[in-house]
Amino acid sequence: MKNKKDKLKAKLPRGFKDNQEDVISLRNAVSDVIKNECQKYAFSEIDTSTIEYSESLGKFLPDSDRPEGGVFSFQDEDGQWLSLRYDLTAPLARYVAENYQYLNKPFKRYQTGLVFRNEKPGPGRFREFLQFDADVIGIQSSFIDAELCIMVSNIFLKLGLGFDKFCIKYSNRQIWDKLFTDNKINGELQTLVLRAIDKKDRVGEDGVKQLLTKGRKDKSGDFMKGVGLSDSQASNIIEFLNSKTQTNEQLEEFNNYLSNYKDYPIVFDPSIVRGLDYYTGMVFEAELLIKVKNDKNQNVIFGSVAGGGRYDKLVSRFGGEDIPATGISIGVDRLIVALKQENLLQSNKQPLVVVANMDENLLSNYLEIADEIRANNIACEISFGNKNLAKQLKYCDKKNADVVIIAGQDEFDKKELSIKNLALGKKISENITERSEWKEQRAGQLNIPRDDLINQLKKILTIE
Amino acid sequence: MKNKKDKLKAKLPRGFKDNQEDVISLRNAVSDVIKNECQKYAFSEIDTSTIEYSESLGKFLPDSDRPEGGVFSFQDEDGQWLSLRYDLTAPLARYVAENYQYLNKPFKRYQTGLVFRNEKPGPGRFREFLQFDADVIGIQSSFIDAELCIMVSNIFLKLGLGFDKFCIKYSNRQIWDKLFTDNKINGELQTLVLRAIDKKDRVGEDGVKQLLTKGRKDKSGDFMKGVGLSDSQASNIIEFLNSKTQTNEQLEEFNNYLSNYKDYPIVFDPSIVRGLDYYTGMVFEAELLIKVKNDKNQNVIFGSVAGGGRYDKLVSRFGGEDIPATGISIGVDRLIVALKQENLLQSNKQPLVVVANMDENLLSNYLEIADEIRANNIACEISFGNKNLAKQLKYCDKKNADVVIIAGQDEFDKKELSIKNLALGKKISENITERSEWKEQRAGQLNIPRDDLINQLKKILTIE
Repeated sequence: MKNKKDKLKAKLPRGFKDNQEDVISLRNAVSDVIKNECQKYAFSEIDTSTIEYSESLGKFLPDSDRPEGGVFSFQDEDGQWLSLRYDLTAPLARYVAENYQYLNKPFKRYQTGLVFRNEKPGPGRFREFLQFDADVIGIQSSFIDAELCIMVSNIFLKLGLGFDKFCIKYSNRQIWDKLFTDNKINGELQTLVLRAIDKKDRVGEDGVKQLLTKGRKDKSGDFMKGVGLSDSQASNIIEFLNSKTQTNEQLEEFNNYLSNYKDYPIVFDPSIVRGLDYYTGMVFEAELLIKVKNDKNQNVIFGSVAGGGRYDKLVSRFGGEDIPATGISIGVDRLIVALKQENLLQSNKQPLVVVANMDENLLSNYLEIADEIRANNIACEISFGNKNLAKQLKYCDKKNADVVIIAGQDEFDKKELSIKNLALGKKISENITERSEWKEQRAGQLNIPRDDLINQLKKILTIE
Repeated sequence: MKNKKDKLKAKLPRGFKDNQEDVISLRNAVSDVIKNECQKYAFSEIDTSTIEYSESLGKFLPDSDRPEGGVFSFQDEDGQWLSLRYDLTAPLARYVAENYQYLNKPFKRYQTGLVFRNEKPGPGRFREFLQFDADVIGIQSSFIDAELCIMVSNIFLKLGLGFDKFCIKYSNRQIWDKLFTDNKINGELQTLVLRAIDKKDRVGEDGVKQLLTKGRKDKSGDFMKGVGLSDSQASNIIEFLNSKTQTNEQLEEFNNYLSNYKDYPIVFDPSIVRGLDYYTGMVFEAELLIKVKNDKNQNVIFGSVAGGGRYDKLVSRFGGEDIPATGISIGVDRLIVALKQENLLQSNKQPLVVVANMDENLLSNYLEIADEIRANNIACEISFGNKNLAKQLKYCDKKNADVVIIAGQDEFDKKELSIKNLALGKKISENITERSEWKEQRAGQLNIPRDDLINQLKKILTIE
């Protein structure tokens, strides 16, 4: 016998989960809204492979706590490294480079797919999650970046999130490039500055200034090393963060497009830098403004559910010239959490009829009934699992069945069926105090002619 | 500069592929039919995680040519081995064991999901493919195995595959156990015998007999080692393969259910053994009988697209008692290949309207038109990619657009639009020989009042 330590445990690795029908039906409902909107904007669906050569994906994830840079990787039998995709953008760049000559440009595609991150899991933070991406290859004009923001806004609207419930903030990586040049901030320092900026929501403006210069001690006493800029460099950056007048050609085009959608909550915010390292121009991030409780039971806003930007140099990693490219991703699973909290999505339960299994010699009769019900597009099952009627009824109750059909040889001889309206039965039994009264009303049970079954079911299930 | 050998190549690892819109829309159409049928039989959708602990999945794949037994595996940061699922059954067993006390038994679930095999890829044989599974946990009676076969038959019928186009063969692993006992064939020998049987389709009855005894030389001269049975043992097995009268309690129940569906092409065939090692009782395999060409351009039947059986010992790997369990899998991608060949599925193209980008100062006008069209659920895009009209028209042609709207300041001043029916234009231009005639008819182009746009589009696209 194996000892306890060796026993095979039935559990998932940390950070992974199984999804039940409610989550799946919400995922499908949200995906349908997204797909419908993308199709209206003439995007086509392309699904790239889940697995890629590791070098095709590159290393673009923000600071990762794992040695493999946040990616799940393994070796092929011929020693080549393969990885599970960590987003849908890097694989698209490979796809575009591989098929460039065959693509009709501009090329607009969308995809909904699972992505994998080898990161530390936490509450609501999984290592496998559903992501949606829409991308446009071959359009230089920032009109198209603006169009992506409008399209995503329309998706939120269709999902029931009004203009007071979300906000899209945008900026441009190139205005940062100019600031860096003006302030003689070069190389690796630029990345460190951007990472400090990315923490602004959490540490505030003073915190950012400390991080940009000599470092910062947080409330727990932990010290985070500073970037080492001079006070004047840091002041220039803070001033820049608060300026609303930065502009360049891309921002002008973007704003020009947006001026046709003045009521949309889309605002310029220089502090938007985005974590992924492949962005080259316009960047944007969609936040949900709905209130949620954090781990400390404080009210906070829900925060980012989508983001994207221009990545004109990602395809040319594979050789050739830079290719204009931009895209937006929605974290579908995170969005679903928000929609559920706001009660904006209900999973719709389908009616269910169960045929009780009273006598296996009557199998043919039961099959005939079940098939007739299914032919009318109503879900039906015969209770093959239990011979005991009480257990069968308990099963129906747990499965939230609507109707159970109870018939033995007697009923079939009389060409009748006994059917029980379980929802009604529950209601009646809640209002009944006397045992005799219960028996009298038979808790929603009635005898019907066998021939009238479908009519009676449709009446009970209010299907027409 | 990097030399040629070091250059980053844009390609997928062998055995993986990207899917275009046509395949995706067929996958969705087939999945919808499958889901609809499963729901009618009261199955719920459960999606298990893509990644599991390797030991949870076990080693059940048939003879694999890879050291890791056909599975993609990698180590977690704490040294534990994780694997990508190779089917949807082994993960379900883990799920059932993990959640047993919370499940409403009998438990019926279905799932459509990608599975991964670290096997040698070949023509039409990929290392990532879409699989559908329906499983029932907690029903001992073989009625439910028969019901799975009927449900899958109904799925084939709904997809347009008539009773002459498919066949489900079934057998039972326990009749083999009895045969093995009677013939004193034990342990590892049993597996070798079953693998030889599994080759019957390819090598014929005589070939199987050779494989069971002293081995077999094929046409290419390659010798395959024999199992080493005596002639009388081998004869008993061959006789058994041809007998149609084998039976046991499970087969009787199964046949009892099937006697209500006499017209369904479901037949007993003792040679059905199934490759996966976890089956314990009824086993079944669905073949498509449609003709296809093989690599040698010979007509062969399409073959297996679905299969399954009872796996009563898979949940108890995690401890506790055996749990009755049975299921069926459909290879969705293989099924789609067959349906396409039979022309049973057409991907339905949505109408597309393109607004030509004649003058960026007119952006507001173009956006207004595009949004109006989208509000009527018609796909529309503004041609931001090219300034040149000829190139824009070429793009429309390649993208198979239906209508292009061409309007400059003149048209807007007159409150008119010029619209071009591209499908009609193509037709006219095919029938026109004279250049002057072409110009006269303007190849499907007409001027319309701006206000009448949606009506005119609906007429052209025949939407009502």
